[in-house]
Amino acid sequence: MKYLIATHGEFSKGIIDAAQLIAGNNNKIDYFSMTKSKGQEEAEEEVKNYLEKTQGKELVVLTDVFGGSVANLFTNFLLNGYKFQLVTGVNLPLVLTLLLSADTDSNTLIKNSIEEAKKGIVYINELIEKQGGDHNDDRIIED
Amino acid sequence: MKYLIATHGEFSKGIIDAAQLIAGNNNKIDYFSMTKSKGQEEAEEEVKNYLEKTQGKELVVLTDVFGGSVANLFTNFLLNGYKFQLVTGVNLPLVLTLLLSADTDSNTLIKNSIEEAKKGIVYINELIEKQGGDHNDDRIIED
Repeated sequence: MKYLIATHGEFSKGIIDAAQLIAGNNNKIDYFSMTKSKGQEEAEEEVKNYLEKTQGKELVVLTDVFGGSVANLFTNFLLNGYKFQLVTGVNLPLVLTLLLSADTDSNTLIKNSIEEAKKGIVYINELIEKQGGDHNDDRIIED
Repeated sequence: MKYLIATHGEFSKGIIDAAQLIAGNNNKIDYFSMTKSKGQEEAEEEVKNYLEKTQGKELVVLTDVFGGSVANLFTNFLLNGYKFQLVTGVNLPLVLTLLLSADTDSNTLIKNSIEEAKKGIVYINELIEKQGGDHNDDRIIED
């Protein structure tokens, strides 16, 4: 499985840095950044070249925000017949679950990872309150 | 409301860059990065200084992954009586909803933003399939 993290600005590079600090370096993840200086046509050309290079491989594209220009750019390629998986709202639990899972069926892997990504958004104050201030040692990850 | 994004590596700086490209620059957001070269004690000292500087202000800390060392570091400060709001699993929908909302009650604002953050994790292929390949123009954001 190959991953492309595609976001506005430096977000994509940054989240890869964090993922690699926890899960180790690997060459599975590429990034795409939409910057102020990059025009729409230039971005489309860059994405097109990347998608053509990776056709035939299992590619999962993780992008930043539903309805944002980067997600829309990739959605248009999907609607024009390019084959890849597209998920918006990327966070670190999503990236880590994808990277660390042994599941090889991309559809199931993505659905499970989305569940983990949602479960990973936790309001800690509320959690502590519910537990009556007790420290919770039931951690997913300890790096 | 003041925000601190606290993550492993360059993730925190990166997501602020993306948020500011969409929502404009502002001085509401600070960042904390846990790097390879930063020791645990050094990190604790840095966080302690920051929290003492901001006590009395409404502070929301957004961190990367539940159970990771950065989230645990902040959870320990919460359990030791420091007052701030702590959320894990940060993604761009969460940051944008917080920044763009007019709600001033931090508890309600955070709960609503967490809902938006979860709703913002979308499997686009599945969405397109459900809509029979129709393009969905019902976007949250268009930057």
